[in-house]
Amino acid sequence: MTKDKKPWGGRFTEPTDRQVEEFTASIDFDKRLYRYDIDGSIAHCRMLARQGIISKEEENKIVSGLKDILEDMEMGNFDYSIDCEDIHMAVERSLMGRIGDVGGKLHTGRSRNDQVSLDMRLYMRDEILRTIDLVKTLKSSLVSLAKNEIDTVMPGYTHLQRAQPVLLSHYLLAYWEMFNRDHSRLTECYQRTNIMPLGSAALAGTGLSIDRDYVSECLAFPSMTKNSMDAVSDRDFVAEFIFDASLLMMHMSRFCEDLIIWTSEEYGFVEISDAFTTGSSIMPQKKNPDVAELIRGKTGRVYGNLVAILTVLKGLPMAYDRDLQEDKEPLFDTIDTVQGSVHILSEMTKNLCFNKLRMSEEAAKGFSTATDVAEYLVMHGVSFRDAHEIVGRLVRYCIEKDKALPSLTMEEFRHFYEGFREDVYDRLTVESSINARNIPGGTSKEMVLRRIVEIEEKKN
Amino acid sequence: MTKDKKPWGGRFTEPTDRQVEEFTASIDFDKRLYRYDIDGSIAHCRMLARQGIISKEEENKIVSGLKDILEDMEMGNFDYSIDCEDIHMAVERSLMGRIGDVGGKLHTGRSRNDQVSLDMRLYMRDEILRTIDLVKTLKSSLVSLAKNEIDTVMPGYTHLQRAQPVLLSHYLLAYWEMFNRDHSRLTECYQRTNIMPLGSAALAGTGLSIDRDYVSECLAFPSMTKNSMDAVSDRDFVAEFIFDASLLMMHMSRFCEDLIIWTSEEYGFVEISDAFTTGSSIMPQKKNPDVAELIRGKTGRVYGNLVAILTVLKGLPMAYDRDLQEDKEPLFDTIDTVQGSVHILSEMTKNLCFNKLRMSEEAAKGFSTATDVAEYLVMHGVSFRDAHEIVGRLVRYCIEKDKALPSLTMEEFRHFYEGFREDVYDRLTVESSINARNIPGGTSKEMVLRRIVEIEEKKN
Amino acid sequence: MTKDKKPWGGRFTEPTDRQVEEFTASIDFDKRLYRYDIDGSIAHCRMLARQGIISKEEENKIVSGLKDILEDMEMGNFDYSIDCEDIHMAVERSLMGRIGDVGGKLHTGRSRNDQVSLDMRLYMRDEILRTIDLVKTLKSSLVSLAKNEIDTVMPGYTHLQRAQPVLLSHYLLAYWEMFNRDHSRLTECYQRTNIMPLGSAALAGTGLSIDRDYVSECLAFPSMTKNSMDAVSDRDFVAEFIFDASLLMMHMSRFCEDLIIWTSEEYGFVEISDAFTTGSSIMPQKKNPDVAELIRGKTGRVYGNLVAILTVLKGLPMAYDRDLQEDKEPLFDTIDTVQGSVHILSEMTKNLCFNKLRMSEEAAKGFSTATDVAEYLVMHGVSFRDAHEIVGRLVRYCIEKDKALPSLTMEEFRHFYEGFREDVYDRLTVESSINARNIPGGTSKEMVLRRIVEIEEKKN
Amino acid sequence: MTKDKKPWGGRFTEPTDRQVEEFTASIDFDKRLYRYDIDGSIAHCRMLARQGIISKEEENKIVSGLKDILEDMEMGNFDYSIDCEDIHMAVERSLMGRIGDVGGKLHTGRSRNDQVSLDMRLYMRDEILRTIDLVKTLKSSLVSLAKNEIDTVMPGYTHLQRAQPVLLSHYLLAYWEMFNRDHSRLTECYQRTNIMPLGSAALAGTGLSIDRDYVSECLAFPSMTKNSMDAVSDRDFVAEFIFDASLLMMHMSRFCEDLIIWTSEEYGFVEISDAFTTGSSIMPQKKNPDVAELIRGKTGRVYGNLVAILTVLKGLPMAYDRDLQEDKEPLFDTIDTVQGSVHILSEMTKNLCFNKLRMSEEAAKGFSTATDVAEYLVMHGVSFRDAHEIVGRLVRYCIEKDKALPSLTMEEFRHFYEGFREDVYDRLTVESSINARNIPGGTSKEMVLRRIVEIEEKKN
Repeated sequence: MTKDKKPWGGRFTEPTDRQVEEFTASIDFDKRLYRYDIDGSIAHCRMLARQGIISKEEENKIVSGLKDILEDMEMGNFDYSIDCEDIHMAVERSLMGRIGDVGGKLHTGRSRNDQVSLDMRLYMRDEILRTIDLVKTLKSSLVSLAKNEIDTVMPGYTHLQRAQPVLLSHYLLAYWEMFNRDHSRLTECYQRTNIMPLGSAALAGTGLSIDRDYVSECLAFPSMTKNSMDAVSDRDFVAEFIFDASLLMMHMSRFCEDLIIWTSEEYGFVEISDAFTTGSSIMPQKKNPDVAELIRGKTGRVYGNLVAILTVLKGLPMAYDRDLQEDKEPLFDTIDTVQGSVHILSEMTKNLCFNKLRMSEEAAKGFSTATDVAEYLVMHGVSFRDAHEIVGRLVRYCIEKDKALPSLTMEEFRHFYEGFREDVYDRLTVESSINARNIPGGTSKEMVLRRIVEIEEKKN
Repeated sequence: MTKDKKPWGGRFTEPTDRQVEEFTASIDFDKRLYRYDIDGSIAHCRMLARQGIISKEEENKIVSGLKDILEDMEMGNFDYSIDCEDIHMAVERSLMGRIGDVGGKLHTGRSRNDQVSLDMRLYMRDEILRTIDLVKTLKSSLVSLAKNEIDTVMPGYTHLQRAQPVLLSHYLLAYWEMFNRDHSRLTECYQRTNIMPLGSAALAGTGLSIDRDYVSECLAFPSMTKNSMDAVSDRDFVAEFIFDASLLMMHMSRFCEDLIIWTSEEYGFVEISDAFTTGSSIMPQKKNPDVAELIRGKTGRVYGNLVAILTVLKGLPMAYDRDLQEDKEPLFDTIDTVQGSVHILSEMTKNLCFNKLRMSEEAAKGFSTATDVAEYLVMHGVSFRDAHEIVGRLVRYCIEKDKALPSLTMEEFRHFYEGFREDVYDRLTVESSINARNIPGGTSKEMVLRRIVEIEEKKN
Repeated sequence: MTKDKKPWGGRFTEPTDRQVEEFTASIDFDKRLYRYDIDGSIAHCRMLARQGIISKEEENKIVSGLKDILEDMEMGNFDYSIDCEDIHMAVERSLMGRIGDVGGKLHTGRSRNDQVSLDMRLYMRDEILRTIDLVKTLKSSLVSLAKNEIDTVMPGYTHLQRAQPVLLSHYLLAYWEMFNRDHSRLTECYQRTNIMPLGSAALAGTGLSIDRDYVSECLAFPSMTKNSMDAVSDRDFVAEFIFDASLLMMHMSRFCEDLIIWTSEEYGFVEISDAFTTGSSIMPQKKNPDVAELIRGKTGRVYGNLVAILTVLKGLPMAYDRDLQEDKEPLFDTIDTVQGSVHILSEMTKNLCFNKLRMSEEAAKGFSTATDVAEYLVMHGVSFRDAHEIVGRLVRYCIEKDKALPSLTMEEFRHFYEGFREDVYDRLTVESSINARNIPGGTSKEMVLRRIVEIEEKKN
Repeated sequence: MTKDKKPWGGRFTEPTDRQVEEFTASIDFDKRLYRYDIDGSIAHCRMLARQGIISKEEENKIVSGLKDILEDMEMGNFDYSIDCEDIHMAVERSLMGRIGDVGGKLHTGRSRNDQVSLDMRLYMRDEILRTIDLVKTLKSSLVSLAKNEIDTVMPGYTHLQRAQPVLLSHYLLAYWEMFNRDHSRLTECYQRTNIMPLGSAALAGTGLSIDRDYVSECLAFPSMTKNSMDAVSDRDFVAEFIFDASLLMMHMSRFCEDLIIWTSEEYGFVEISDAFTTGSSIMPQKKNPDVAELIRGKTGRVYGNLVAILTVLKGLPMAYDRDLQEDKEPLFDTIDTVQGSVHILSEMTKNLCFNKLRMSEEAAKGFSTATDVAEYLVMHGVSFRDAHEIVGRLVRYCIEKDKALPSLTMEEFRHFYEGFREDVYDRLTVESSINARNIPGGTSKEMVLRRIVEIEEKKN
């Protein structure tokens, strides 16, 4: 076989159109898999020798050639030519250039269909773990910040309207819970990715006496695929990872939305350090939360990648179809985007400077303890629905008179309900409101601290 | 409180616009949650009494009223009026109509924000289990069919071109593997759904001394949410279920695509029973695989629902926002679609009649054992790349001469490679090709039967 | 033919499975097309008579029967039974029940494939026009409001950071421009929808001598489809409408996002009237911008519908496939959602009460006229990049000294650049900043008024 | 200003974090806009001089510097460093390096917000036109092929079941109609893109006396944006183009699906030339329709890009936000994908070799003229519903007896309906069936030829 022939050229009479080569080539993006392609090939080659399909000498030549290639690649000395359709051919062709025809024995008993599945799974194992590590760091950043800000109060919002005061730590730990769910989803996705597909060949398995268990062992896979047709056409693990990444981006987009609103002058709750903001080319006074905006925006591209892979897979006939080549770019882009975003958000989180005074002042405004008054009434035997009604009228009265709840006289209180007593004033402060919510999951300082301890003791 | 007042009317001076009521109401679709709303309320009420927040007598009245309402609902005697914004208000208003003002105590210590999260989780627990049961049935149908068809051979395809012969059972079990992954994803989604959120109140927890553990126990939740702000704004479990359903629909769409192609006259591999097909209003001869087409098409709506919920959640400020009401219709539609599709596909699968003769004839055509010849050469010491090249030229020769591989003479074989021997003819039959693929995951009868045993012994 | 037979039952031996009937039936949702189905049938029937395919007497019976059915439907007296697969069969079966076997002549020369395309196009013509009318009303609401608020200034934002003062009218007219683009897109979509498909029959046209031009004329279509295979499988007009609706929802979501932020206590720029807000079941003080939140959230479902229809259409073999039945629900839901949202937003817009004082005060803060100072320097010969740098340092100085630009002394100004003169103070007011932007498209009062005149004179 | 300073550095005290720089930089992808950035800058600069804002001499220096930069870029001699956030800064910094501080005057009266909108619109004008040209070529390929194949008959399908015979030309022209709609949508998108935004500055317009009309004229824009806030935040034209591309990809995916099915051995309707197919690394006999599969698959990425941009835009507060930077990559990828796919499909279309004999044989099978028999009965006074029923029973009889319709005796025909006459046999041939469909839009040779003439005379 000459060096520039296609690996499948035997039955063809016309050469491939040059434009077709470019259109179908994946080498530009799948070269990212190079290390895994070589690792997989070495394991495959060792197995072939162990099974007596190739000789020990052939094994040594091939493995040594592959290692040379890997070294060149790591050094940046490898020529990824478009003439090679994909990374698998680039490696094989280079191998034959280095060690001669014996290189042609490497592809014995496998097909590019199972080879690419193996490469993808090897690659994703590493990348899922890397993503998990970044999520862990983000979670730690939040816990650290929650500990530092344990005495900071803030207005809690629903509908972006002030609702009830909460601890900033409680708010931050809400994100911890979200990222913790992402963490658990990624762990499960890892399990479903960590399965060895080689030996499925094109779609039916191979007729050669290969040893799939040995390959699994070499590559540290705990189990292997159970059906060759499924194995070569399955991209569930890709779609699942992109979905997990979508939820992770969504969670970050919510945090970023809050930060963007909070850094507006009107809120003024937080300042992001200069290192994590940018300015304007026209307005000299601007300091923009670009990083937060970009993370929010990048949620769109990950959602888009999810739709891309799902669309590709819909209605595909069995088993392998070339459409499946379109799994890589959405996946690679998702990995880059989500890892970059998680990392930069972790760093930015460490560079947030909260304006405690302003948050605390605002937490007290807007009748934020009205619910506490209603609960006060409930404890004095009023039904909740009536209590809600009474306090609602109190609030309307305050708005009309431009008063705050704590400034009402006892007489005014009693005008709305006879049963008010002096101790109602104790329920009107932000601190009492927060600490009253002293049930598991609530925002009281005691409960928030307890949760921090749980987290740090890994009880989740 | 009069019967037609809003539960939050105290501070308002103008009534809600009628069109606004209709625009914001969810009663039309969230009435589906009625049973869970009442179950949750009963548990909440029992806890309130146990904690002394309401009296034993009040408890009895409320619980009995709720049970009456449930009975009316089950009987179809309940008026879900648009005046009630949602199912929660419809129940509460009816309760007060039945038992008077004491009904107003039920909402003590909770908010609609945590109540709706509870209802959704209770509802989804049931529906996820129902979906899992349907998937199990579908898996069983496939295994039964695989056992019945254990001797049926078919052409295996890649790129919809005949590739290598496989057992029909092997093909069917490939789908078993896919649905089995769906099964495992749904099981994990169930774990993340099965968490008790009540007590989170509006966003901060409640100041009343409620007992969340007791409510969890009453409703058979193994654990409860850890952060009130997260609990009221979390819809991960909805998005995750819709994603799991998306992959499940995608798998079915692939099976249906195959069935549609296979029922075309050109393939003629399978006939779907009359009960699962429909005809044409204009062409009397037509028998259309409508059910398969609809399942394939319905994949689109589930993908759409996934995009809907992800779009809703992107960039939402904390904690609860009204946008979250838009979680229900995509979820409900997904549940109906996926359960209906899985069920009907199970039934249709039992009503497939395969044309074994035709499948077997076609399996032998198209040089489907060319790979076997290449493997034969490899076993005789030829490198795989050279073997591929030799057989490629053999195939081109056959095409030009309009011959099949088994009809070549020994002389013709040797024209392409000297080392061919008589035993090559043994590799040219469909049966030998299939049974040669005798490695785990391969299509040989032995391996396929072994997998069936594994599945039936639940070793998966 | 007996009344309960399928219209295509001739070649079938087994009855359709009951569950299959339910799974494949569309009557539940396509009954919405009833009026158009009957209009189309009347036109078709008149043409059949005119061509001599049916007699005048038969025409009269059929048309009269169809009109009776329509009347019953309008009165709510029609039984849409699931036994009828779809609206077309429901009408035809009822017709035969009323006028006997002659009703069976109506379907001559057409198929449900072209009939449903006709119904959809007739229906969408009306609904696109209705949507356009609603958009026009929304545009008018914005112009009215812009006229009323012509003297209201507000801070203009980029990155949600205060950037430069603008007129509120200018802001409102930005949305006018967006909705105007939606208007133009919908108009073009209408053109592509307003094409008559009948006569395409199942896929190939009919062999009967029908007159497509006459049907087009009866139904006021300016043109007809040019290729029967395309006509029965084309759903571009559905996808295009849903896309146009997606952009329209997106524009509304942006306006709503602004309103939600502006109604927060921290901004306090606008109050939405009680009629367009709702309260909380637990927090008596809350007044939530639910309508704005729901419109923002409903953007998700329209995006989802777009993905649904695109997914359905991808990779469908020609010509008609049953998957296409899945076009209706996403379309219907989109129409309801977008029309409801546009309408309610128009109404809400009329019920906005802006806090002019607060907006004006805030417009002056945050160095919002810094760009004006830079432009001042440019007019005095400084290069823009240098001017930007000088003013950037001025701003930093002000932040450090906690001063505003207008409070700086001439000396302080000159410390940063010698060329500052007294007239710089004239550039520091909000009004001068706004009115300086006196170029087409700019925010000066003159330009905004000019644009209002252009709009009102329909020069767009 | 020193060369390595940020263009907005004045008010900042800390340098930007290096990782932040990388995360926020767009130079890697927006350098694609370089030519348009320079064209826009030259027009802007000429206008500044004409208005007396800069001197004639400054104009000359700047324009000459910009032209030098363009030349270097065209030659590949330009260093796009990551230190420059984006293409705008890369150009400006290089300009200042070449001509000194005077380069700093170029950015007078504009902001990157309106500059990037201008660049995008200039770029897209070219790319939309290029896409239109490619679509025109594809349409021409289809017409040529339709002319060549005017006598080729094929089975027309619905539900992928043989329905009625049609001309292959009719089938091909159905795609012409689809691509023609794409053509018209792209033309309209071009109109909405071809609008000049410069002068909108950051969001409010500029206070300098610029001349927007002159810039429009220089850059050949027929009109300009009407509202500065809308202009800097509008990306409708990007979303609209990606949607138009989505429908275009969808149409191609349908054609490719057909080709993939038709090249399967079971159909054998068409052979794609070797130059447009690839082989298998394991199966020597394979010839795969990879190009068609990839186009079908790439539909997914364009759909994904549509979801990405729509997600980015949803709920963005006014006016410009950094999220908008995420518009570029989905757009660029869409342009590359759609142009590449249209081009390669045009080429492949020219390289299709239809198996006329096989298509013709198959067209005659499967009772494909059953509808013609029903129409025959209608012409003899039978109601269509009865005719359908009669022929349905005929077909069932044939299936049971394993006969074809033309082989039935007159007696057999009359067994089902007395009114059959000898002339029924004339309706049973494929040719008569096709030519009977002789109405506008129908598949008769006369009508198809008439449509070809219309198309070629550009009457569409």
